[in-house]
Amino acid sequence: MAKHIIIIGAVALGPKVACRLRRLDPEADITVIDRDNLISYGGCGIPYYVGGDIADIEGLCSTTAHALRDPEFFKTCKGIQIIPRVEAVGINKKEKELKIQYLDDNRQETLAYDKLVIATGATPFRPPIPGADLPKVFTVSNLHTAKDIKDILSKGQAKKAVVIGAGAIGIEMAEALTDLWAVDTTIVEMADQVLPAALGKQVSKIVENQLENNEVKVMLSERVLKINGDPSSGVTSVETATGTLECDLVIMSAGVRPNTQFAAEAGLAVGSSGALLVDRCMRTTDPHIYAGGDCVELRNLVSGENMTMPLGSLANRQGRIIANNIHGRASQFKGTVGTFCIKVFDLGIATAGLTAGQAKASGFDPIHAIVAQHDRAHFYPDSKMMFITLIADAKTRKILGIEAVGNQGDAIKARVDAIAPLFQIGLNVDDVCVLETGYAPPYASAMDIINNAGNVLDNILEKRNNPIDVIDFIKKFEAGKIRVLDVRDAKEAAPLIEKYKDRWISIPQPELRTRINEVPNNVPLCLLCGTGARSYECQILLTQNGVTNTENIQGGYAMLAVTAPEFI
Amino acid sequence: MAKHIIIIGAVALGPKVACRLRRLDPEADITVIDRDNLISYGGCGIPYYVGGDIADIEGLCSTTAHALRDPEFFKTCKGIQIIPRVEAVGINKKEKELKIQYLDDNRQETLAYDKLVIATGATPFRPPIPGADLPKVFTVSNLHTAKDIKDILSKGQAKKAVVIGAGAIGIEMAEALTDLWAVDTTIVEMADQVLPAALGKQVSKIVENQLENNEVKVMLSERVLKINGDPSSGVTSVETATGTLECDLVIMSAGVRPNTQFAAEAGLAVGSSGALLVDRCMRTTDPHIYAGGDCVELRNLVSGENMTMPLGSLANRQGRIIANNIHGRASQFKGTVGTFCIKVFDLGIATAGLTAGQAKASGFDPIHAIVAQHDRAHFYPDSKMMFITLIADAKTRKILGIEAVGNQGDAIKARVDAIAPLFQIGLNVDDVCVLETGYAPPYASAMDIINNAGNVLDNILEKRNNPIDVIDFIKKFEAGKIRVLDVRDAKEAAPLIEKYKDRWISIPQPELRTRINEVPNNVPLCLLCGTGARSYECQILLTQNGVTNTENIQGGYAMLAVTAPEFI
Repeated sequence: MAKHIIIIGAVALGPKVACRLRRLDPEADITVIDRDNLISYGGCGIPYYVGGDIADIEGLCSTTAHALRDPEFFKTCKGIQIIPRVEAVGINKKEKELKIQYLDDNRQETLAYDKLVIATGATPFRPPIPGADLPKVFTVSNLHTAKDIKDILSKGQAKKAVVIGAGAIGIEMAEALTDLWAVDTTIVEMADQVLPAALGKQVSKIVENQLENNEVKVMLSERVLKINGDPSSGVTSVETATGTLECDLVIMSAGVRPNTQFAAEAGLAVGSSGALLVDRCMRTTDPHIYAGGDCVELRNLVSGENMTMPLGSLANRQGRIIANNIHGRASQFKGTVGTFCIKVFDLGIATAGLTAGQAKASGFDPIHAIVAQHDRAHFYPDSKMMFITLIADAKTRKILGIEAVGNQGDAIKARVDAIAPLFQIGLNVDDVCVLETGYAPPYASAMDIINNAGNVLDNILEKRNNPIDVIDFIKKFEAGKIRVLDVRDAKEAAPLIEKYKDRWISIPQPELRTRINEVPNNVPLCLLCGTGARSYECQILLTQNGVTNTENIQGGYAMLAVTAPEFI
Repeated sequence: MAKHIIIIGAVALGPKVACRLRRLDPEADITVIDRDNLISYGGCGIPYYVGGDIADIEGLCSTTAHALRDPEFFKTCKGIQIIPRVEAVGINKKEKELKIQYLDDNRQETLAYDKLVIATGATPFRPPIPGADLPKVFTVSNLHTAKDIKDILSKGQAKKAVVIGAGAIGIEMAEALTDLWAVDTTIVEMADQVLPAALGKQVSKIVENQLENNEVKVMLSERVLKINGDPSSGVTSVETATGTLECDLVIMSAGVRPNTQFAAEAGLAVGSSGALLVDRCMRTTDPHIYAGGDCVELRNLVSGENMTMPLGSLANRQGRIIANNIHGRASQFKGTVGTFCIKVFDLGIATAGLTAGQAKASGFDPIHAIVAQHDRAHFYPDSKMMFITLIADAKTRKILGIEAVGNQGDAIKARVDAIAPLFQIGLNVDDVCVLETGYAPPYASAMDIINNAGNVLDNILEKRNNPIDVIDFIKKFEAGKIRVLDVRDAKEAAPLIEKYKDRWISIPQPELRTRINEVPNNVPLCLLCGTGARSYECQILLTQNGVTNTENIQGGYAMLAVTAPEFI
């Protein structure tokens, strides 16, 4: 007898399970239900639809061959039945029955299943702020709100916007509002940096500057107290702890919450995040019920802890695993290494693993290197500077995380993708030093930035390189605690000597061997060169000559330029 | 007492060993000798210098900070002594002495060493063809020949060129000659494809078309018999087995030979390639002599066999390993997975591991999938098609190789770099299906091409997908052996029905379920869609309905368009 498979949720994972299962088994009785009438859309494309990169909402619901992915498409092309506007309201695990409710007429029905798949995703969190339910206060939750937001923008009804939360969605939406619609946009973030879940302070500062340079205002360590407005005409301002921001549009991007209430009520185990617990076969605590995507917790393969990672890419990969297992073929999804990337105007950012903060919270002893280097051979014409933070555990030398940022996004992603898949086997610093990636002058340096990041981190671990991050350097310098030894060409150092007088000393690297007695031995010194490589060599030379009061500014002048342009 | 270290060779690996060693040990007595007066240059940049991407030869001998890397630079900045114009002529291993000869006055001298490093690199092979020593017949060996070639070009003295060998250097030089200098260029290659050491037939055909589309003529399976010309004015033509090519410039790019004669004569073991054998510490068969770079054999971590891999990137990474070991710190270089990339006009190509042919020769049972997919989310504006061949061993499902090609080179390299480092741990097809790489719509699809390549290969291994490569399909079709079932939209199929009449059948995928009785069951059928994904679904449907005479054209119409534009 044919198996009855019911799948709850028709975006990303749900359709993937259904289609794969149909290809594996022509006889299976497969039904997919969804609360919405718009299904199987690329939700991660919403900011690009709002920002005009994608002209029509249909672009997000179509296949590569421009077929609209509606229930009719799934029926004729995929042999799958999809029932829209239906909500799952209860599970009777013992009888293997799902209770559903039709949203248009509130009719309830009970469906029998052999295997049930929960792919209900997550819903944007709407913080309990007074006024959060006013008109023109949106979360980025589905295509309906996407349409509503774009409608307001295209009618010119938004001049000033406040985005609450500087996570990925908040930043992408701020870019969309500013770049195409020239809306005066402010991001308000509770943490003291942007992208707090993905980045350490140093790289996040580059992203923050990128936003400010592109007309997006960023307010950090700031709490929204109240949203003011009129229940009919909508929001008029946002009150924060330090003032009032006038606006006629608010986007809330304060994270998501998994849609698991009915499943938890049925007795399926959920983790501390509220998301469902699944094993490596993506099975819940009931052997006949699978779950995947944004509504489950995944094992973080670096920390070993559970986490949620709401990404369409992970959901799609899990979908195939679930279908295989339902069909009787053992397939496993081990977890995630937390790979993440985002485009912020013309800047690409990619990360994987843990930030230093997360690593510390997970009981590691994180130590990091920051390197600046060209993304092509430095002699190749369109080479651009990129920056990488590489984090390892000081005790075990195991790599814990990587953050990369630069102007050629594909090249940035390439560096992180070369490391990230290795996290699951526990690579160490020495493995990174010799990591083999493709080399040709148009695409990389002979010694790629990845290898150099490993080398620098090794030197730091071996205590040959005594580093200081640019943001820490600036704090110390502004507090008057240190002087700078600039080992670049004298003419490069000149403007900073003029600005900072005797606190800025110039001895170019080629002269250092013979002028070593000019180096002050009695005050803390920070060494600066273009990227941190020559200053490291100078630090070694100084140390070998008994000058040990030095710190090497990581990423050098290149990092200063993107971190604190006003300083130089 | 300070150690005496002598390093033979001052390009790439040699200087790297010297500089790292100096940083580790201020006391060591480090001497680097080289035959040339130009040292420490980026040899892989020569085609870009000839092609005008790099204006001056100094660009290839300078640091990122624009300092010229000459002996003076190494002395003042690095604390390293470099002696140019000196050749190593003999090693007395017992006494630990190196005999050298000064090239300018033939004076010989004997230097004592504690540790010796052989970094003599490789010399381009000059095939023993009559006329190979005529003026204006060049190998791409060093900056002197690079200058000579550019000199001829900039004086307008070359109108027609023949490049012998379609390896990386030959192709890069052909691009340089054609693109900037508009020289009428023909590549003559003995093998039946371009890049025979790096690519399988299908992807190499795309590269061949790319060359032809950019005015570079390609002659395959062709042998050069003789080079004609005048001993004073130079080459006038190249005779091949099938005709005569007039030309006034010849570039020979027929591979390289390691410079190891004096080392072999001293009794150091060399492999079948003539390159030195080294262990994982980069030690030769004499414990006091290290070697690395283009003059050593490396373990291929996929096949387990030894190979040479003359790449500046590998040399630099080995340099650090050698310095560490000399300093007394255990460091290992396990080998190579054969990662390779090249830019051919606006096309990027990256590969790793073995080609199907190499895999077969190494005793594997290779099976492959070819996929076509966009490099960004398909709805994202500037997405371009890319193509990947993924090769596995049919018995063990272990991944053996990957080849990728497309217009956004960094994105191409990213895909190969995400897989290549995993070769050394023996990843299998299932690992690729769930490989986690960065996802955001501007940089990737939710189901990345890497994962899809794994999925397709899994389906082929599981015999659910019965594939045919485009080049095989065309042969069969032109031999009248097969018909095509085109499952794209009827209007997309129309031009091909007009061209190929009843040999081209159109049933769009959405109609296939209801029109399945129209599908001819008595002749071999090839299924075509845009990229091979929908035709796979149709193949499943047909198989489930008893129509089993089908093959699925891998990469679909997209692959046809880049393989055989004249066919469509």
